[in-house]
Amino acid sequence: MKTSTIVALALAGAAAMLSVGSVHQTATAQMTDWGPKWTSDGKLQLPTGYREWIYLGSPLTPNALNDGKAGFPEYHNVYIQPQAYKIYKQSGTFPEGTIMLKELQLVMESEEADGSRTEVSGRGYFPGAYNGIDIAVKDSKRFAASNNWGYFNFGHHAPPYAETAAAAPTENCAQCHIDNATKDMVFTRFYGPLNN
Amino acid sequence: MKTSTIVALALAGAAAMLSVGSVHQTATAQMTDWGPKWTSDGKLQLPTGYREWIYLGSPLTPNALNDGKAGFPEYHNVYIQPQAYKIYKQSGTFPEGTIMLKELQLVMESEEADGSRTEVSGRGYFPGAYNGIDIAVKDSKRFAASNNWGYFNFGHHAPPYAETAAAAPTENCAQCHIDNATKDMVFTRFYGPLNN
Repeated sequence: MKTSTIVALALAGAAAMLSVGSVHQTATAQMTDWGPKWTSDGKLQLPTGYREWIYLGSPLTPNALNDGKAGFPEYHNVYIQPQAYKIYKQSGTFPEGTIMLKELQLVMESEEADGSRTEVSGRGYFPGAYNGIDIAVKDSKRFAASNNWGYFNFGHHAPPYAETAAAAPTENCAQCHIDNATKDMVFTRFYGPLNN
Repeated sequence: MKTSTIVALALAGAAAMLSVGSVHQTATAQMTDWGPKWTSDGKLQLPTGYREWIYLGSPLTPNALNDGKAGFPEYHNVYIQPQAYKIYKQSGTFPEGTIMLKELQLVMESEEADGSRTEVSGRGYFPGAYNGIDIAVKDSKRFAASNNWGYFNFGHHAPPYAETAAAAPTENCAQCHIDNATKDMVFTRFYGPLNN
C-alpha cells in the first residue's frame, strides 16, 4: 500500500468520524430546541417561524356576529409545533413542551351586517390583517395547578406582538379549557389533523 | 503501520465514501421529489402529507350564505408545498413545480340561518368534516396556454379523494384565476404568509 493511499484513507476515516460526531450533535440539539423558551423570570418567549408549523384549523368568530367584539377577533388560525405534532401522531398524547399557538386574523372589510363580503368564489369571510397571538404550553412542573397547561396572551392587535408574556391567571384561560376542551385541555374537536 | 490499522482505515474510508454517496443521492432526490408527480398519461397524482405543508389562509364561503350550495363548500384551507414556499420567500416568484393545494372543509352543523353556531368562544363557524381537494400546479411547458398553471379537481366530497386527476378545461378554473388573481395566477391577497 502506498503512503499516499494510507494518508487518503486516514483522511477519509477522520471525515467519517467527524460526520458521525455532527449527526449526534444535531440529534441532541433537536431534542432540546423545539420546546418553549423561557426568560429568567419565567415568562414565555414568543416562538419564531410559527407560520411554518403544522396547521390544525380555523374557528372563525366574526365581530359582526358577536355584538361587534368577539372574544377572539376573528379567525383563530391554530398551529402546533411540528415535533410535538409528530409525537402526538405516534402516541396519541401531547408531550411535555407541546406548544399550541393561535394567531388571530381579522376578516376583510365587510359589505353585510353579518360581517361577510362577496368575492369571486362566493359570499363569505376572507382572511385580512393579522390580529394577535395566544399560546398554550404543556409543562407539568410549571402548570401542575391548571391541568399541566399554561396560557399566554401576546396581545390581541396587529403585529408586532409582545416578545414575552407571563402565564395568565387560571380563571382567564385555563378554566375554560378545563370546563370545555375535548382532550387534555385541547379543543381537538375543531382540529381535523389531530383526529385523522 | 499494522495491517489491522490499514484495514480499519480502509473500512472508514469506504464508510465515508458511502456517506458522501448517500448525501449526494439525497440532495438529488430532494431536487426532484418536491414537485408534482404525473401518471404516464399526464394526470396529476394526489400528493401525500399535504396537511403538513405551509398553511396560507382559509377563505370561508358557507353554503348558507350561497343559496345553500357554495362553489367551494365551505372552508378553503390553502397550503403551498414547503420547498416552493421557501423559494418564493427568497425570490418573490413561484418556481416551476409549485403546488398550491386547497382542501375544503365543511362547517360544523349550524343553529342559525347564516350557517353559524355558538361555541364557548362565541358565535361563528367551526371546522367540521373535510370535503374535497383542488390543486394548482405551475408548469410552463404543460400549461403554457393558461398562463403556466394547470388546475385539478380531486373531488368535492368527503375523503377518500380521487388518486389522480386530469387538468380541468381552462374555462373551469384557469380563466377565473386569469381574470381575478392577485399575482401570477394566485389569490395572494388572501394569503398573509405570501405578503409578509
